[in-house]
Amino acid sequence: MFEKVALIGVGLIGSSLSHAMRRANLARTIAASARTEATRAAVRRLGLADEVYEHAADAVKGADLVILCTPVGTFDALAQEIAPHLKDGAILSDAGSVKQAVVDAVAPHLPPHVHFIPGHPIAGTEFSGPESGFAELFDGRWTILTPLPDADEAAVAKLKAFWEACGAHVEIMEPKHHDLVLAITSHLPHLIAYNIVGTVADLEEEKKSEVIKFSASGFRDFTRIAASDPTMWRDIFINNKEAVLEILGRFTEDLAAMQRHIRWGEGDKLFDKFTRTRAVRRSIIDAGQESPEPNFGRTPAPKKD
Amino acid sequence: MFEKVALIGVGLIGSSLSHAMRRANLARTIAASARTEATRAAVRRLGLADEVYEHAADAVKGADLVILCTPVGTFDALAQEIAPHLKDGAILSDAGSVKQAVVDAVAPHLPPHVHFIPGHPIAGTEFSGPESGFAELFDGRWTILTPLPDADEAAVAKLKAFWEACGAHVEIMEPKHHDLVLAITSHLPHLIAYNIVGTVADLEEEKKSEVIKFSASGFRDFTRIAASDPTMWRDIFINNKEAVLEILGRFTEDLAAMQRHIRWGEGDKLFDKFTRTRAVRRSIIDAGQESPEPNFGRTPAPKKD
Repeated sequence: MFEKVALIGVGLIGSSLSHAMRRANLARTIAASARTEATRAAVRRLGLADEVYEHAADAVKGADLVILCTPVGTFDALAQEIAPHLKDGAILSDAGSVKQAVVDAVAPHLPPHVHFIPGHPIAGTEFSGPESGFAELFDGRWTILTPLPDADEAAVAKLKAFWEACGAHVEIMEPKHHDLVLAITSHLPHLIAYNIVGTVADLEEEKKSEVIKFSASGFRDFTRIAASDPTMWRDIFINNKEAVLEILGRFTEDLAAMQRHIRWGEGDKLFDKFTRTRAVRRSIIDAGQESPEPNFGRTPAPKKD
Repeated sequence: MFEKVALIGVGLIGSSLSHAMRRANLARTIAASARTEATRAAVRRLGLADEVYEHAADAVKGADLVILCTPVGTFDALAQEIAPHLKDGAILSDAGSVKQAVVDAVAPHLPPHVHFIPGHPIAGTEFSGPESGFAELFDGRWTILTPLPDADEAAVAKLKAFWEACGAHVEIMEPKHHDLVLAITSHLPHLIAYNIVGTVADLEEEKKSEVIKFSASGFRDFTRIAASDPTMWRDIFINNKEAVLEILGRFTEDLAAMQRHIRWGEGDKLFDKFTRTRAVRRSIIDAGQESPEPNFGRTPAPKKD
């Protein structure tokens, strides 16, 4: 599909893209750049790229498709670095979890002969680094593309076909709309999980060890989300500030109401709320976004009679 | 181990106890009571009990061990109902998720010839009802017993052996201490999950359907916890008010600080917090309380080289 694809950064997403491209034979050559020697060594050892560079500017030379797979906080400097080296007609995309801030950081630096089409594969695990990737990461998951109004239609179609060949479903969206939806589905849940696990991390040692011992009663689910990459998530919150603070405001209002229901023993109101939330999970399972197995399949399911 | 065990209520815990007792041959006779005809029919169909009653008072007659497996809000009335019918020397226990409130509700009604030993199996799934149980639910999980200071040691030892035969590890604890630990590991996580899913349930239809579509980015994990039984959870929050409000206070303080870090772009502080939370998950996996698989095993793990 492409002569040469350049991956800038080889963490979970970059390494998974490499596996997915190899699986579907999407690039004759894969070039990759990584800042640290440790990552470059892993990329070579795992055969994730045919060419491995320290500097992004070297990796992008001659590439038809360039995908930024580093935390979004690096994009401004990266765009400046690679802009003069991008091939005429190249597609530049990214895998960043926010989109308006990426448009603002990257677009001003680019020459007009480059097709810039921001993207976000909504797929991941709590692991990071070049060893954490696998070809199936994008299978059946959504990738959102947020092309600018003047985007080249053929380039958008080609990038869409690329992600579909990596196993993903593709949706087109405005950058700001993407940021609002993701603030709800992803950024707020991560913020809440980081916060509750942080509250526990601050407990006295003795209490903390008991929490760890009895964590299977609910808490452990939050720790999975709160084990995600710290740099990536710092950058997300800083770069999607408005939408995150807006939805966090709604959440804390609702939480204050819940606190009041508990304090005043308003059981009926709690019951109503807890009943409505069950329906949301049903919808997610029906939408094919989640496994219906008890405890995500961590415990055996009851035998059906 | 027992001639006759009576299960009062046959939901997830009651039905799992039946399966676990059958597996290890722990009771010659299992009696069960359930308020609704639908549950009683399911109990009969699934063979979960040898004797099935509408009223708890009938089920407990002649039982050596009685376990209350209904939501804790029912315990006061239940204790009054069964007290006159309990066998001399019977052990009365429960599976309620709070313990001090259970002591307060149950103990005053009991005759001195009954051994009351409150208990809490820390095991469950998001499913409820008699069909949701399975024999392995308690395997390798903790059950906490909170005997009163004057408890009969032989009776405590027997109940401990019973839970161990059901597959559980057993820990002895003060009721109030149990309630504080569980407020952190279980009650606050459920409150937060119910709250964030509730916030989404209140969104306009169009936005809500997008959240469901893209829920795999984190939100879906919360919906699992927020799909738990509403009656049970209403009763838990009402009956562990003090500990829940105390730990919720810490959580909201920390959340306000996090909100401020985001608003003022204090990336270093966010990064520090997000780094410390990773260590907590590592400890939980090391403690054998959690699977190390990515996404709880919902996605394939990377092949090791």
